[in-house]
Amino acid sequence: MDFDLIVLGTGPGGYVAAIRASQLGMKVAVVEKESLGGICLNWGCIPTKALLKSANVFEYIKHASDYGIEIKGEARPDFSSVIKRSRQVAAGMSNGVNFLMKKNKITVISGYGKIQPGNKVEVTDSQGTSKTYSAPHIIIATGGRSRQLPALPQDGKKIIGYREAMSLPEQPRRMVVVGSGAIGVEFAYFYATMGTEVTIVEYMPTIVPLEDEEISKQLERSFKKQGIRILTSSEVIASDTSGQAVQVTVKTPKGEETIQCDIVLSAVGIVANIENIGLEEVGIKTEKGKITVDQYYRTNIPGYYAIGDCVPGQALAHVASAEGIICVEKIAGLHPEPLNYNNIPGCTYCSPEIASVGYTEKAAREAGYEIKVGKFPFSASGKASAAGHKDGFVKVIFDAKYGEFLGCHMIGANVTEMIAEAVVARKLETTGHEIIKSVHPHPTMSEAIMEATADAYGEVIHL
Amino acid sequence: MDFDLIVLGTGPGGYVAAIRASQLGMKVAVVEKESLGGICLNWGCIPTKALLKSANVFEYIKHASDYGIEIKGEARPDFSSVIKRSRQVAAGMSNGVNFLMKKNKITVISGYGKIQPGNKVEVTDSQGTSKTYSAPHIIIATGGRSRQLPALPQDGKKIIGYREAMSLPEQPRRMVVVGSGAIGVEFAYFYATMGTEVTIVEYMPTIVPLEDEEISKQLERSFKKQGIRILTSSEVIASDTSGQAVQVTVKTPKGEETIQCDIVLSAVGIVANIENIGLEEVGIKTEKGKITVDQYYRTNIPGYYAIGDCVPGQALAHVASAEGIICVEKIAGLHPEPLNYNNIPGCTYCSPEIASVGYTEKAAREAGYEIKVGKFPFSASGKASAAGHKDGFVKVIFDAKYGEFLGCHMIGANVTEMIAEAVVARKLETTGHEIIKSVHPHPTMSEAIMEATADAYGEVIHL
Repeated sequence: MDFDLIVLGTGPGGYVAAIRASQLGMKVAVVEKESLGGICLNWGCIPTKALLKSANVFEYIKHASDYGIEIKGEARPDFSSVIKRSRQVAAGMSNGVNFLMKKNKITVISGYGKIQPGNKVEVTDSQGTSKTYSAPHIIIATGGRSRQLPALPQDGKKIIGYREAMSLPEQPRRMVVVGSGAIGVEFAYFYATMGTEVTIVEYMPTIVPLEDEEISKQLERSFKKQGIRILTSSEVIASDTSGQAVQVTVKTPKGEETIQCDIVLSAVGIVANIENIGLEEVGIKTEKGKITVDQYYRTNIPGYYAIGDCVPGQALAHVASAEGIICVEKIAGLHPEPLNYNNIPGCTYCSPEIASVGYTEKAAREAGYEIKVGKFPFSASGKASAAGHKDGFVKVIFDAKYGEFLGCHMIGANVTEMIAEAVVARKLETTGHEIIKSVHPHPTMSEAIMEATADAYGEVIHL
Repeated sequence: MDFDLIVLGTGPGGYVAAIRASQLGMKVAVVEKESLGGICLNWGCIPTKALLKSANVFEYIKHASDYGIEIKGEARPDFSSVIKRSRQVAAGMSNGVNFLMKKNKITVISGYGKIQPGNKVEVTDSQGTSKTYSAPHIIIATGGRSRQLPALPQDGKKIIGYREAMSLPEQPRRMVVVGSGAIGVEFAYFYATMGTEVTIVEYMPTIVPLEDEEISKQLERSFKKQGIRILTSSEVIASDTSGQAVQVTVKTPKGEETIQCDIVLSAVGIVANIENIGLEEVGIKTEKGKITVDQYYRTNIPGYYAIGDCVPGQALAHVASAEGIICVEKIAGLHPEPLNYNNIPGCTYCSPEIASVGYTEKAAREAGYEIKVGKFPFSASGKASAAGHKDGFVKVIFDAKYGEFLGCHMIGANVTEMIAEAVVARKLETTGHEIIKSVHPHPTMSEAIMEATADAYGEVIHL
């Protein structure tokens, strides 16, 4: 065998699995057809956060006088510089992964990888030359790609996916964003802040439909204040790109409407990359477009594993990384605990930010819990007042009987940095009173978690 | 008796104790000679955070082009607008406390309170009229004030304390900040960012001398980059305010130096307000300038309690609040756990921010622990790169034997919102591996806590 482990794909699932395997003494190779780091580093998490930071900075500039800063003259985003910075940040992180591969003595094989029976991987490079490598353990971490809607075929020019959305040659004047999950609302916020007229079209009755309903409502209010148009319970039924502008026909509860715009961003989820990677040849089972695995990410064929966006579970970078580590630790003979998919935080980095973990109020009730709900608005937070970020709130849900911390849902500035507390607390089966009695520093936004919890137990101070 | 409980002082110790007492069914009065909210709301935590936010915004504006935003024309802080905003934020929060007092049916008695034997408080109002009130329980929460150095007598004009520092009529051109605890470095950062030439004089060998040494060194590097001059192991031995400028004579390791400046800020700690409040008349014991209390904040005289800056323990708003709640819960017959003073987070809101909890590396070694130390620099964090905040790091300290989380020390953007995770983790006696296995959302700065912990155990991925 050439290696102890071969990993197909170097996204945050693949490269993290490779590093952990190397730490555990394995001889590891990764196969990658594009840049190291996968979508997350190159076309996802990282470059979008760079764009959003530019939007944040521009927002501060627009509101500089609120903070006592005078700007004489015009301030405007230079769209191409904003994009360029984002690409540079992505390139820097991808170089970082390159460094990590070298440091961990991981062989990087460039090319398109396809698994084969008999613990083999065939890699075809850009010149079309193929070579076959073998390893007793092969992890499939090929990730996902933007899902295509039949009524909205992506041409990469006028009807685009997230990749094109973060590298457009020029700023569109009018944009329709279809889908309002994390990707949709992040781009909607970014473009709206840059000055684009943005309309969101969402099939479900609320935007960010996976979040707690109160979070969705708050974001809708904030977005409308920012001038973003929102059409919920609506559906794109046709699109026409033949003219200068795109014509998007939307079925709304009030009837059909045709919207003219320059760019349509299709952000209706992702599909797994499971075609043409040899699954059929090896006999690996799939279901509903995902590879079937057990709790240690073993497929039905011994020696073949799968993690990340190509298996069930949330399609999130941190999930892929956690799965990769567990998969590799199990291969190495350690005893990792299976991942608790109900304790995975989700973060959305528009402004206001959203962060949540665990049950929504509705899901907790549907699961049969008798619950205590607490809420604390940032309008009552001293730090939020001082920072000029009074929008939003923290909402917590506890099991009324045993005090279990069922869910935490936050919307506001910086909440993506605050959710880890709830994750750790839930991991440790912390009760409400233990959170109330953990002294949170004053003045911080994080006090709102303590206060929301106190609110659930009738002990809130600042409400 | 007039009330069940009378609280002297309405800082974050006093007003929080009053609210909790009201929740527990007591008839409560508070006595206050100035604005509700005490130093914290009116002259401390809150207004300084407002000033610091203006400085943050101005920094973003100065670096706008790094984020792709073009500003044509000059940007400059309007000092009086910055101060005015800070005062407005403070006033808003003080009004908020007023609302909370009404909502909780707490009687607010305006005037100077003095305890008397026999469970009485005499209050003298601004007209000089005195009235006496009685209650079986009296909490002293009179707070503290800026400590005076003999060589640096505060005149409130040229040699000032924190109060004047946040309400100067005009921006000084040159400022000397004496003392580099949280108050000193926050003002040093604020004024330096606004454009003032700032020199810090610190008696100890490092700035922020209570922090872990590596934190102190990192802040020193960052501050020097920002143009702040730092004199450590140095001491003000004389000051002369007779001329136009102030002459400050400083004894440094290299000899004596005289610094000319417009304003000297004395920030060498606080002293408790324990004079003329009747302690001697009632017979309440004090030691080293603080009121002596037990773990439930009972003084030696039954019915008299003391909390906050006038008792031993960290002089921090969140400590005072926690003490107030425990004190009142005990009075009400509940069974609160005594406060663990080793799990109190400390936050400093200069840029980069500092947040820490528990043992420093040095303190842990001195306490006899065999330790594992982990570190993760923000330069290796994707979120930090995207945000343009690569300065700083997270450092964690674990007991090598039992895995106890001994300390967490952070410096960088937003770390004050990240420390609550460590507080809750330590409260729950979380081990290192439980933190490593708590899935932190990607991309966030909070991942650095997970990575630093993994580093302590040889499992760090991104280093």
